[in-house]
Amino acid sequence: MHGDYEALRREARAMEAQLRQWRRDFHTYAEPGWCEVRTASRVAGELTRLGYEVLTGRDVCLAEARMGLPPAEVLEAAYGRALEQGADPQFAAAARGGFTGVIGVLRCGPGPVTALRFDMDALGVRESEAPDHRPAAEGFRSVNEGVMHACGHDGHTAMGLAAARLLMRRRDRLRGTVKLIFQPAEEGVRGAAAIVAAGHLDDADYVLATHMGDRGTGNGQVGLTTGTTLATAKLDIAFTGRAVHAAMAPEQGANALLAAAAAVLALHGLPRHSGGDTRVNVGTLRAGTGRNVVCDRAVLEAEVRGATTAVCDDLEQAARRIVQGAAEMEGCTCDVVRAGAAGALFSDAPLLALCRETAEAMGLCVPPTGTTDSASEDFAAMADRVRSRGGQALYFRTLTACSGPFHSAAFDFDESALPDGAALLAALALRLSHSLVAE
Amino acid sequence: MHGDYEALRREARAMEAQLRQWRRDFHTYAEPGWCEVRTASRVAGELTRLGYEVLTGRDVCLAEARMGLPPAEVLEAAYGRALEQGADPQFAAAARGGFTGVIGVLRCGPGPVTALRFDMDALGVRESEAPDHRPAAEGFRSVNEGVMHACGHDGHTAMGLAAARLLMRRRDRLRGTVKLIFQPAEEGVRGAAAIVAAGHLDDADYVLATHMGDRGTGNGQVGLTTGTTLATAKLDIAFTGRAVHAAMAPEQGANALLAAAAAVLALHGLPRHSGGDTRVNVGTLRAGTGRNVVCDRAVLEAEVRGATTAVCDDLEQAARRIVQGAAEMEGCTCDVVRAGAAGALFSDAPLLALCRETAEAMGLCVPPTGTTDSASEDFAAMADRVRSRGGQALYFRTLTACSGPFHSAAFDFDESALPDGAALLAALALRLSHSLVAE
Amino acid sequence: MHGDYEALRREARAMEAQLRQWRRDFHTYAEPGWCEVRTASRVAGELTRLGYEVLTGRDVCLAEARMGLPPAEVLEAAYGRALEQGADPQFAAAARGGFTGVIGVLRCGPGPVTALRFDMDALGVRESEAPDHRPAAEGFRSVNEGVMHACGHDGHTAMGLAAARLLMRRRDRLRGTVKLIFQPAEEGVRGAAAIVAAGHLDDADYVLATHMGDRGTGNGQVGLTTGTTLATAKLDIAFTGRAVHAAMAPEQGANALLAAAAAVLALHGLPRHSGGDTRVNVGTLRAGTGRNVVCDRAVLEAEVRGATTAVCDDLEQAARRIVQGAAEMEGCTCDVVRAGAAGALFSDAPLLALCRETAEAMGLCVPPTGTTDSASEDFAAMADRVRSRGGQALYFRTLTACSGPFHSAAFDFDESALPDGAALLAALALRLSHSLVAE
Amino acid sequence: MHGDYEALRREARAMEAQLRQWRRDFHTYAEPGWCEVRTASRVAGELTRLGYEVLTGRDVCLAEARMGLPPAEVLEAAYGRALEQGADPQFAAAARGGFTGVIGVLRCGPGPVTALRFDMDALGVRESEAPDHRPAAEGFRSVNEGVMHACGHDGHTAMGLAAARLLMRRRDRLRGTVKLIFQPAEEGVRGAAAIVAAGHLDDADYVLATHMGDRGTGNGQVGLTTGTTLATAKLDIAFTGRAVHAAMAPEQGANALLAAAAAVLALHGLPRHSGGDTRVNVGTLRAGTGRNVVCDRAVLEAEVRGATTAVCDDLEQAARRIVQGAAEMEGCTCDVVRAGAAGALFSDAPLLALCRETAEAMGLCVPPTGTTDSASEDFAAMADRVRSRGGQALYFRTLTACSGPFHSAAFDFDESALPDGAALLAALALRLSHSLVAE
Repeated sequence: MHGDYEALRREARAMEAQLRQWRRDFHTYAEPGWCEVRTASRVAGELTRLGYEVLTGRDVCLAEARMGLPPAEVLEAAYGRALEQGADPQFAAAARGGFTGVIGVLRCGPGPVTALRFDMDALGVRESEAPDHRPAAEGFRSVNEGVMHACGHDGHTAMGLAAARLLMRRRDRLRGTVKLIFQPAEEGVRGAAAIVAAGHLDDADYVLATHMGDRGTGNGQVGLTTGTTLATAKLDIAFTGRAVHAAMAPEQGANALLAAAAAVLALHGLPRHSGGDTRVNVGTLRAGTGRNVVCDRAVLEAEVRGATTAVCDDLEQAARRIVQGAAEMEGCTCDVVRAGAAGALFSDAPLLALCRETAEAMGLCVPPTGTTDSASEDFAAMADRVRSRGGQALYFRTLTACSGPFHSAAFDFDESALPDGAALLAALALRLSHSLVAE
Repeated sequence: MHGDYEALRREARAMEAQLRQWRRDFHTYAEPGWCEVRTASRVAGELTRLGYEVLTGRDVCLAEARMGLPPAEVLEAAYGRALEQGADPQFAAAARGGFTGVIGVLRCGPGPVTALRFDMDALGVRESEAPDHRPAAEGFRSVNEGVMHACGHDGHTAMGLAAARLLMRRRDRLRGTVKLIFQPAEEGVRGAAAIVAAGHLDDADYVLATHMGDRGTGNGQVGLTTGTTLATAKLDIAFTGRAVHAAMAPEQGANALLAAAAAVLALHGLPRHSGGDTRVNVGTLRAGTGRNVVCDRAVLEAEVRGATTAVCDDLEQAARRIVQGAAEMEGCTCDVVRAGAAGALFSDAPLLALCRETAEAMGLCVPPTGTTDSASEDFAAMADRVRSRGGQALYFRTLTACSGPFHSAAFDFDESALPDGAALLAALALRLSHSLVAE
Repeated sequence: MHGDYEALRREARAMEAQLRQWRRDFHTYAEPGWCEVRTASRVAGELTRLGYEVLTGRDVCLAEARMGLPPAEVLEAAYGRALEQGADPQFAAAARGGFTGVIGVLRCGPGPVTALRFDMDALGVRESEAPDHRPAAEGFRSVNEGVMHACGHDGHTAMGLAAARLLMRRRDRLRGTVKLIFQPAEEGVRGAAAIVAAGHLDDADYVLATHMGDRGTGNGQVGLTTGTTLATAKLDIAFTGRAVHAAMAPEQGANALLAAAAAVLALHGLPRHSGGDTRVNVGTLRAGTGRNVVCDRAVLEAEVRGATTAVCDDLEQAARRIVQGAAEMEGCTCDVVRAGAAGALFSDAPLLALCRETAEAMGLCVPPTGTTDSASEDFAAMADRVRSRGGQALYFRTLTACSGPFHSAAFDFDESALPDGAALLAALALRLSHSLVAE
Repeated sequence: MHGDYEALRREARAMEAQLRQWRRDFHTYAEPGWCEVRTASRVAGELTRLGYEVLTGRDVCLAEARMGLPPAEVLEAAYGRALEQGADPQFAAAARGGFTGVIGVLRCGPGPVTALRFDMDALGVRESEAPDHRPAAEGFRSVNEGVMHACGHDGHTAMGLAAARLLMRRRDRLRGTVKLIFQPAEEGVRGAAAIVAAGHLDDADYVLATHMGDRGTGNGQVGLTTGTTLATAKLDIAFTGRAVHAAMAPEQGANALLAAAAAVLALHGLPRHSGGDTRVNVGTLRAGTGRNVVCDRAVLEAEVRGATTAVCDDLEQAARRIVQGAAEMEGCTCDVVRAGAAGALFSDAPLLALCRETAEAMGLCVPPTGTTDSASEDFAAMADRVRSRGGQALYFRTLTACSGPFHSAAFDFDESALPDGAALLAALALRLSHSLVAE
């Protein structure tokens, strides 16, 4: 198999210019969650050209399981913009209205089902114009003001297309099925659940994903972690009261801002948990229309996190009780919507071992395995589903030199890591396709 | 009638030593609300001796309408102490267990029913031992430590007995019925409602009461007020949660202190009211058993006040909603008990005029009528009931020189005003007994 | 003098079409506070044409005393829009940058100084497009979306121009000086103070203003009130903390939203006041940038009101203490800016009498004088200044049939009242110009 | 050495009746923290009899470093009761006033200094009278109502006396110095710091302590833990405001209850920490004197805990900032007193290994070493001091069958474990006394 590894890595490196071009294209036309119309169209086109069986639109995401969907007018504007920016009209039509997931399927007879996940969405960050910011200097700064690939998903999508090529070239040697899942709306942990709900992971024996990571001053190319991320739930909370003039007859109002303020304090006062680490945050609050009007509407964006999904669920349940109580205090009503959710994500030990061995065999440097990874990850929903069916999951970092923190306006990464990441994913898929026989 | 006035005032003045003795006796053996066993026994004995038809015990107060009742062991201790301090065992037995009201009835054939109210309870104040505090200097400081007549109810009760004598002497000239109501638990506005609930005001055409007042540097002997006091409701609020070790598994607790803290803030944030002035106060909070235990019990004493009974009711209703919501927020339960309540008290204009005219005819000085009186008064419950039946109510101040503010450890008053107050009440009762004929 | 009244009223009625045209022009091009560039230009042009000595720009408002000024870019946009909408470039230049006050002065030798105040600003309300809304039906709905004359200031400005004509025609008979003050930014009680601070009221013996009022189902044309409005202070409160990722190292943040929530609850819990009625409201809160970021910025719009300026000052002082304490709690800083302020407004009894007498003499109907007027009014700053110099102030309502509540999208008024209002103001100015002689 | 172990264990078992007698004596006359006058007297007498150099009173604890000291009258009452209950007057005199620590020193020439810590205080728990509660059934239930050895310190003290005997018998074979430290006020983590501050640990190379533990259904006799307890700080927080009548002029008050409520919510909202686990609790709040009085005094008992002392310090510092800010909000002042504090406690690995080896050599069963121990322990102050000087610390559990949870009224333990615990401590001290030579 060693020769395979070398060939994979060599072929991937030969695609480096193409990977760079893809990544910079996605970077230039950055699209936020559920709005990835142009990106999805490009992905779907490429997979189709390669010969994959391609699922798009409503075939990928269960409509009602999509969380944190923007308003219809925002989705429609995204569709219009994608067309203007060169999206293939046929694929764009499928993606219209928040159906921006794409799955490429490669069926190679009986054998294990291996799914690879790539996320495609950008963030609501205004990209730096500084001359030392490479995208600005080299002309691929986001043209969509206020939207930026500041988390590396542009690289993930590019790696997904490269892996698609590498695997298609090896279709004769593959057994079972490979699914390449291009997911919308990972930010805010909103999109994976809709793909899971549509059943696409129900038959998977393995599910893999990678995320760009900063190798810091080290020389790591692959980062592995034995610990778990925190499970999280994102809650959109809206208090509705009754507006009246604040001086005339204030007793006739129902003050949504007072309810919200009580809720903010109580939410931050959610108890610590014997089950492990927790986090709580109310990040935003928008309330009221005028200084002299009793506030009738207050909208909060909150999140809870926990060391396990059970801990996180406890917090979410308590949070829901708090906001209902706060509403009652002030004679208001309260609506709570889950705008996102992810379980605690961890990798199964056999896949971690396989990943380490494969990476080392490919000549990729793997630093000591870390114990924690503090970010939450939407991929957990897929990992949980696969694991619940007896399968396994792997999440690793494709390490490279990064400039600026993740999610910052100055974020960028060294693209030379993209071929290696794609090659490693392809190698893992190849090994797993033989797993049922091999074990 | 002028000769009558002079005779009344002269006779009352002749009783001054007796009034002083009564007042000092009540002062010495001060008893708090619902514990006035000795006081009530003395009153009942006196009324009986005078020939009144006397109601005591359960005949006076409707058991379940008594608000803010102390625990049974406190009532029992009060009973024991009263016996030790010389209460007539027969009357004490009737008063045992928080039935300390007494009513003396004088029936004189057909005619109007006039009720006079006298309150008997003392306050939870430790009386001054200073040598310039007359009760201390002259040996009638309260022997019941921590209980003190610091609001003049000892004087009211004494005036009631004197009025009883004056009226009995004039029974031949009276028409209709006179009821002398000696009420328990006026402090905290707790006792009047139980007498009203028992129906004793249902047939009253008039109800009158007086309260000691500081004449300040003026020479007033009778104070009249056209405005209203604030209506009030007293609420005892108890949050019950679940105690757990604060470090082990705090998420398994239900934190009654957090609920209480949220409620305290929200109660003080009750909106102002277009219907008039309001007040809110949470005066006390007792919560928790140990530093490292999640608090499972928090008890608050709160009150709301409003310019009208309707305003006060609005506040009470909102307060009840707040505390239930606060309990829900923290997974606690909440019990609310009305520990007292009084409507807004005001005097009817015809009785105010009658009082002014009568007082002036008796040679009593009446300063200009005031517009406001900020205290709340339990007597409002009686006034409201009588008024709801088409009757009228009067509340006036018997003014005298006072030392120290009302409710303070240094409070005392000049007893020389007692005869005049008693005489004026008797004169008013006499005039009203002829009212149906006169009008 | 009776003939004068008739002539005034007749002449004013002859201007009705002009009044309507003016009012509808101002209505169409509604401009919010400090942005009244076009309105002010039109007023300045008209006063100049009439022969008034005209003050504009920095001569009217003391720059640093202007409260609640919008950001510079908003002011600049208002200037640009005014030019597009036909403002006279010369006057517009003076008004640029938030200097939109205009004063017309008519000097007629020795004698009293009488100031008339007219406010010119519109509200941030989106005007109704309903077919039964007359401005929509008759083509003068605001073309400036989201800005609307929903409080009648368009009518006030029109009346001011009419009064200017009436008085100029009578300049020979006037003694002393008349000042017609066209004030910016009355809404939010922001603009009067800057005119007062510039000294324009320092020599005034009288200051008068009128405001449209709904005559309801009655037939009143002039509304007089003996009571006071509530004094008020408007506070813009900004908490600044430190943003950090809410899950990574939340302890390194400083949570401005927690500070704001604590402040909201405590502000609403400001105690009631023995000095009279009070109001408190936090009407709006904008906080935070993202769900998973510890909030570093929270901005509140709050207001306090009190029966007297002293009561209001007590509340403002306590509010300032609360927000500083709340900031300290969370390691934040807090900036508080007075975005507006007005004292309690009342009319002096002699002017009320003069107004009643004059109105009746002119055949205008005056219903019984009311006792309260619950709105706050910026005019109080002018009244207070004049009164502090020994002068007097008058504020009356020009009553007419109104559709929709004040400040609502459906507000409109019957323009036929405009001539009478203008005539009454002119008549009062005429009478007062002789007052020093007459008395 | 094996023979030594057997001898130690045999000798200790021979003392079982004595151990039981001591323990039951301490149990019967349970004394709370800083009040252990009788217990300390008994200990001092015993150590003196054995030939130890004995430090008592002010020689043991630095006066001003004692935390959470009860009021002087409580200390005085404890002294009086101890005398009544048979305390040796001489030793009791030294312990009077909260100086209840005792140290026995055994100097055996040059060599390491090994300190053993035993805590002596009981809890404020009312002991069960149930017939199945052994102390009740066998007549050694606490005679001091409301004070109970519910945490096993009676057993610790008894083991200390047994270890003293065992070591004195082996004085010839000891090198260096052994210090037996009998500590007051471990509950509330209040007493260790005063002994540390007095310098008694400054020369120690080793410090050891044991605590009773429930062996559950296992057969463990020694419990070892590699993790740390949480560091903790106990804070007594008092808000002082200004009392006024709640209805008359509430604006003249300063509401300590509002400050306390704001503080309670904000304290529970202290952020989670990237440095590790945290806990926060406000366990009790006592506020106010009357329903209708603005509260002028609110007293809280709070605690914070953190995975490390640094984390705990961060929390304490933030808590102090919160309460000062809350006080400022309401115009109150705030006093904060540290009523107790302990660092995170852990055992040094070499001592853990030594303990395991020794216990096994003695035939004591040692279950797998645990990773966490969630209680806080005052012993941490001693461990930190010794470690800061280059020394090592060990804390292990003496496991036995327990009835009822620790700190509950039903707590009791099987006394048959006492000899083994004492023998193990003595064995460790013996081995460590040779350590400098042996290594």
